[in-house]
Amino acid sequence: MQLGANLPKIGSYNRAVVLETIQASDGISRVQIAARTRLTAQTVSVIVRRLLEEGLVVEDGSVPSSGGKPRTILRVDPGAGYAVGVHFDPQEISCVLADLAGRPVARSHLAVRTALSPEAVIRQMARAARRILREAGVPDGKVLGVGLACPGPLDGDGVMVSPPRLPAWDQVPIKRLLCEHTRFPVTVDNDATAAAIGERWAGTARTTPSFAYLYLGTGIGGGIFLDNQVYRGRSMNAAEFGHITVEPDGPECYCGNRGCVEALCCPSAIEAALGVPHAAACAAAARGEPAAREVIERVARRLADAAVSVVNMLDIDLLVLGGPALREVGEIYREVIAQAVTDRALARRLHAVRVETSPIAADAAAIGAASLVFHATYAPRLRTTLLGG
Amino acid sequence: MQLGANLPKIGSYNRAVVLETIQASDGISRVQIAARTRLTAQTVSVIVRRLLEEGLVVEDGSVPSSGGKPRTILRVDPGAGYAVGVHFDPQEISCVLADLAGRPVARSHLAVRTALSPEAVIRQMARAARRILREAGVPDGKVLGVGLACPGPLDGDGVMVSPPRLPAWDQVPIKRLLCEHTRFPVTVDNDATAAAIGERWAGTARTTPSFAYLYLGTGIGGGIFLDNQVYRGRSMNAAEFGHITVEPDGPECYCGNRGCVEALCCPSAIEAALGVPHAAACAAAARGEPAAREVIERVARRLADAAVSVVNMLDIDLLVLGGPALREVGEIYREVIAQAVTDRALARRLHAVRVETSPIAADAAAIGAASLVFHATYAPRLRTTLLGG
Repeated sequence: MQLGANLPKIGSYNRAVVLETIQASDGISRVQIAARTRLTAQTVSVIVRRLLEEGLVVEDGSVPSSGGKPRTILRVDPGAGYAVGVHFDPQEISCVLADLAGRPVARSHLAVRTALSPEAVIRQMARAARRILREAGVPDGKVLGVGLACPGPLDGDGVMVSPPRLPAWDQVPIKRLLCEHTRFPVTVDNDATAAAIGERWAGTARTTPSFAYLYLGTGIGGGIFLDNQVYRGRSMNAAEFGHITVEPDGPECYCGNRGCVEALCCPSAIEAALGVPHAAACAAAARGEPAAREVIERVARRLADAAVSVVNMLDIDLLVLGGPALREVGEIYREVIAQAVTDRALARRLHAVRVETSPIAADAAAIGAASLVFHATYAPRLRTTLLGG
Repeated sequence: MQLGANLPKIGSYNRAVVLETIQASDGISRVQIAARTRLTAQTVSVIVRRLLEEGLVVEDGSVPSSGGKPRTILRVDPGAGYAVGVHFDPQEISCVLADLAGRPVARSHLAVRTALSPEAVIRQMARAARRILREAGVPDGKVLGVGLACPGPLDGDGVMVSPPRLPAWDQVPIKRLLCEHTRFPVTVDNDATAAAIGERWAGTARTTPSFAYLYLGTGIGGGIFLDNQVYRGRSMNAAEFGHITVEPDGPECYCGNRGCVEALCCPSAIEAALGVPHAAACAAAARGEPAAREVIERVARRLADAAVSVVNMLDIDLLVLGGPALREVGEIYREVIAQAVTDRALARRLHAVRVETSPIAADAAAIGAASLVFHATYAPRLRTTLLGG
């Protein structure tokens, strides 16, 4: 059942719209904000005044206007707030300190020892977050929160539920524990959704309303933005692109399904096919060695099959490829997928679908984790803001 | 870029929310509407008074309440408005006259002669629409409009763009022409999306916020509802479930892709495998004849592969199977698909996904076409209502 809309909340929605418009621009005037948001000049002026007072936005020079009076340029003040992004991968904890513009200002990496209990690993994460803040000299008062990107599935309270590659982590309330150990508010999401939000906040999808994000890490996942909103699904587990069946009689996947993209295309499948570590396989393919090249191109074709299905299902403008497993082969993947989408997508005569590799691919999930905090704090969410849902 | 929200439009959004709440119920009181929509009692009361004045809603008896004073039951008045639904299939024009409750009150069917020009076929549709209204004695003033469900792709102006099974119909402005010939406002959508909207309005998905609809007709398509809104995609061509690749080395599909669900599972593929008409093949499978049963079960397994991918991508609560090609084999399809979703969907431990056959399957697209009119007239669309987008 749909909910009615409450009038007083429109103000905070419009505030978020204006802030996001400034954030997504490379400097913008009040007149341009009004034109893009279709808000009145007066509404924009009132909201901007408040954002300036709060220090989230700064005036940064001016440009001549056709009307004569120069227009003041507004930007988000990158130093107005910070977020720590933690990416928990089965093998590694990555940490990023990001400013309000989504730019990483510090990074750290830490191997995960498999012998440790979940609680001990979460304490490691908390220490890593504290350390990166201390070393950068960011006071607690400027920290908006900690974002955590971790393997799914997650329930609505940030509890991990049967994560397929981490059997010991079933039912671990990772959000609550990290909050207790850092004493910051924690926003959690699965790694691929976090990476998609990072792409929206700081990457190649800043101004694209609807896009899909194909995340290539230890596993394969994804994220979906529809009409400017991240789409999470009924149980926060939408966009599991890794578990699209591309070979009905293909190998069993640990997820219970068969012939999944992930089972055929993840780094361990490439390692099994070539008998060398994933990094070496990618390097060999990039150098053009035939055996490696053949395996990587076969992987690219299966990714392309899934990509065409995603495009036919979601009818989007942009597919972004990201995640650490892109390594040196991202461009091979991108070319094969872009060609497939151009040749085979059903709506290809109506509009083109861009396929791009993420400019922040390697750290996508950690930057995305930091962006979770900004996104939760600032992104305009019409439904939840107005409807209190 | 997101748009700001305009205050005065909230009223019409809330009006649509209340009307939809009444429509989706089997009789509901003002107090229940307020509880479900979280609108204030006063707002509900004002909106209901206006709906009663307009004759869209009627008071229909009362029920005792815990507080003492009996509560008046409200219902949509089915006779307050009508819509004609036209389903244009490559082989047949189906017409339905539906009342405001979404119930079909009259039906007609007309074979399409392939020799006719598109314009002549559209004139046939218009005559069929006029005839069904005349025979039912519905005056023009009670007609909200004509809904048209036709094969995609369609552009935003209701022009058919390279419909794969209708080469002569490329660039035909079917919406404009049907409007000219009927002199009613025309709402158009592709057949599968229309069927999904019909399911939402009058079928099994009335109160499910997010569901996918798998449409089995001459071709295979689909529809998606997310958070109570139909999701159409960038070019109105989302949910093309028929063009999910389920066999990467499978047969070429007319769409340009390979191994598509549609190429493997549509009626003509079943006819090719068994050498008998589709209806006979379905009847034989339903009787349990081994050869037919085997083909239908193989088709069901490929549909199930696609269904698991759809569920993993969209993380929904309900998958509805509909369309004329379900015939006697709908229950075979439903069982195989339900089992696959239960066993193989990634979030299966977090929530169950229901798989149901549509109670209005045979006429789904025509009823859906009529529902397009109601949906366009009444359904609460927060984004477009508030943002004018």
